[in-house]
Amino acid sequence: MVATPTAPPSAASRPAVSDRHRLQAAQLDVPTRLLLGPGPSNAHPRVLQALGMRQVGHLDPAFIELMNETQELLRYVWQTDNEVTIPVSGTGSAAMEATLANTVEPGDKVLIGINGYFGLRLTDMAERYGADVKQIFKPWGEVFSLEELRAAMEEHRPAMLALVHAETSTGACQPFEGVGDLCREFDCLLLADTVTSIGGVPLFVDEWGIDMVYAGGQKALSCPPGIAPLSFSDRALAKLNARKSKVPNWYLDLSLVGKYWGSDRTYHHTAPINMNYAMRECLRLVAEEGLEERWARHQSTGELLWEGLADMGIECHVAKEFRLPTLTTVKIPEGVDGKAVCKQLLADYNIEIGGGLGELGGKVWRVGLMGHNSRPETVVTLLAALKKVLGK
Amino acid sequence: MVATPTAPPSAASRPAVSDRHRLQAAQLDVPTRLLLGPGPSNAHPRVLQALGMRQVGHLDPAFIELMNETQELLRYVWQTDNEVTIPVSGTGSAAMEATLANTVEPGDKVLIGINGYFGLRLTDMAERYGADVKQIFKPWGEVFSLEELRAAMEEHRPAMLALVHAETSTGACQPFEGVGDLCREFDCLLLADTVTSIGGVPLFVDEWGIDMVYAGGQKALSCPPGIAPLSFSDRALAKLNARKSKVPNWYLDLSLVGKYWGSDRTYHHTAPINMNYAMRECLRLVAEEGLEERWARHQSTGELLWEGLADMGIECHVAKEFRLPTLTTVKIPEGVDGKAVCKQLLADYNIEIGGGLGELGGKVWRVGLMGHNSRPETVVTLLAALKKVLGK
Repeated sequence: MVATPTAPPSAASRPAVSDRHRLQAAQLDVPTRLLLGPGPSNAHPRVLQALGMRQVGHLDPAFIELMNETQELLRYVWQTDNEVTIPVSGTGSAAMEATLANTVEPGDKVLIGINGYFGLRLTDMAERYGADVKQIFKPWGEVFSLEELRAAMEEHRPAMLALVHAETSTGACQPFEGVGDLCREFDCLLLADTVTSIGGVPLFVDEWGIDMVYAGGQKALSCPPGIAPLSFSDRALAKLNARKSKVPNWYLDLSLVGKYWGSDRTYHHTAPINMNYAMRECLRLVAEEGLEERWARHQSTGELLWEGLADMGIECHVAKEFRLPTLTTVKIPEGVDGKAVCKQLLADYNIEIGGGLGELGGKVWRVGLMGHNSRPETVVTLLAALKKVLGK
Repeated sequence: MVATPTAPPSAASRPAVSDRHRLQAAQLDVPTRLLLGPGPSNAHPRVLQALGMRQVGHLDPAFIELMNETQELLRYVWQTDNEVTIPVSGTGSAAMEATLANTVEPGDKVLIGINGYFGLRLTDMAERYGADVKQIFKPWGEVFSLEELRAAMEEHRPAMLALVHAETSTGACQPFEGVGDLCREFDCLLLADTVTSIGGVPLFVDEWGIDMVYAGGQKALSCPPGIAPLSFSDRALAKLNARKSKVPNWYLDLSLVGKYWGSDRTYHHTAPINMNYAMRECLRLVAEEGLEERWARHQSTGELLWEGLADMGIECHVAKEFRLPTLTTVKIPEGVDGKAVCKQLLADYNIEIGGGLGELGGKVWRVGLMGHNSRPETVVTLLAALKKVLGK
């Protein structure tokens, strides 16, 4: 039987359109916030300009050129020669998941350092891909020593070690010197979360022997959230190419995504054109400034904050040698209602700072000085407002 | 043994920064393209303005308000009361994957209608989540009759039926009248791809009994790509809530994402703030214009194109009663090099149209008249340029 499809009903016989949800919304207006929380930070004005430019198609020769430039600039920012260095079409968490989805096969032993919230998230994700997760722990705000990592590697012999370089939940910076060599000694892949370090803190993907690395755009790169850098070493690609089954995630499957960003330019999904404009512009700003200069700027702005807090008798949570200049966890003084202070800073001064997460909930504020926001005037503004709110 | 982490090396002992990839890129400039391919279409100028606005935090009270408005406007555009109606933080393919990732459990029988490229993509995705996929086929450019769907339902008794409402690869519009009732009769969930119909073609999610639906922003909504609407009915949520295991995809896990977009507002991932500004603005434009008026505009602009093509002796691939006004597949005339025409339209007139995909590769051009681009002046421009290029 060959069935003849019935033509769709004409306008007259269609259901009536309901206006129940036809909201009369006002013109978009947003308060002028200074974003000094854990992220997003304020995008650089030039990045917002680029973001609003007219679109071209995702296979347009002009866009292909832009893709090449973006990849090259990302290699500079991460200090890597990795061919597969791309922005993922999602936020930092999507890039995070992409690193695991592509390289973890069911039963793979994955050793994860847990010294903050994002180690826990890595665990949750890795388990969804069938990993046999082993964890090592440190108090939130501390970091792992090479000896501790070696001991755990000897005990577990994992296929992958995952560490958070810059823990957004604690403000601690994990040293990576020697970790890549350790991983090679144990024939193990090394994964690093650099969401809060990229573009703000010294970071050498190739020198440190990192195999899978991801970041977010909305922290020290001063890009709006919605696009997220990722890079894979040849060792990571070898693991991907040797998979026995398809990557169990279509959107983040690097064997497909890589063909679009590689020389094939094969259609996978429609790239977020305007977010790519923004990513290119924020990376261009890093290349103009220079990495050393940018790291030094973040360090000096961070120190300015720390000195100002010390003058007010307020302490930082992380020991100075491991303290991130991009994200400072500030101890909430005895007797102060931390949440009320955040609310008042927002209401009275349009300044956003963050509260603590997990173990540090209620104990710290999180202050981000990232990218375009890492400037002396930002610090003095925050310190002045905080003094007022605390009645100092 | 308590190991003491070694402090990171000082600037003097760090590796040298390499300038190998420090590209000196020029200021971003993009050609002024008229995007009349399968998508993205040009965003509405007001949407680009909204996109470039200064950020607020993703938990800012001002952003929470914007989220509520966006959800409400999405309900209007889709004609649904579904509580879980949200924009996914990725492109249309991410929303597509979210519908399957959340509702498919290993072994579930999923019946997929294949009459174009996106049915094949649904198959690939569903299989990655362990579905037992059954397929029914129609030539590319045709649609399924209710009788054909009933016969397949009787044969396979699936847990889910997935159909593409508007096939971007073929330009055919699948009628949905009666399909929801059929699915309820067989206790089966109904999934619909509305990427190329949302905001451009009559679409009634609740009336038609659709349980999971997704779309893209970059077609008839005139939003840039990078954010993608999704809606789940209570039946779909019941399937999600009854899962025996976690959703095997963290980023798209609606049990987590839903808490951020629901009344909890619990942090999951950082929402793409600026893309949400853009989504709100494009939905606001739809509510201002009115759905009936918008559908009529798309229909009349589509007909203007079809008449102009007929005048040139050029035929359309899809029968008129199932032809999408948003996306027309145009038969490449005998003896014409289809690719060369696309290239020349782009080079000489800054107009992008698309080539054929899959079965229709080399046989058709794909012309999109979507959202802001669905205007008479667009059509006459394209027709005039095409005449020149074809030497008519």
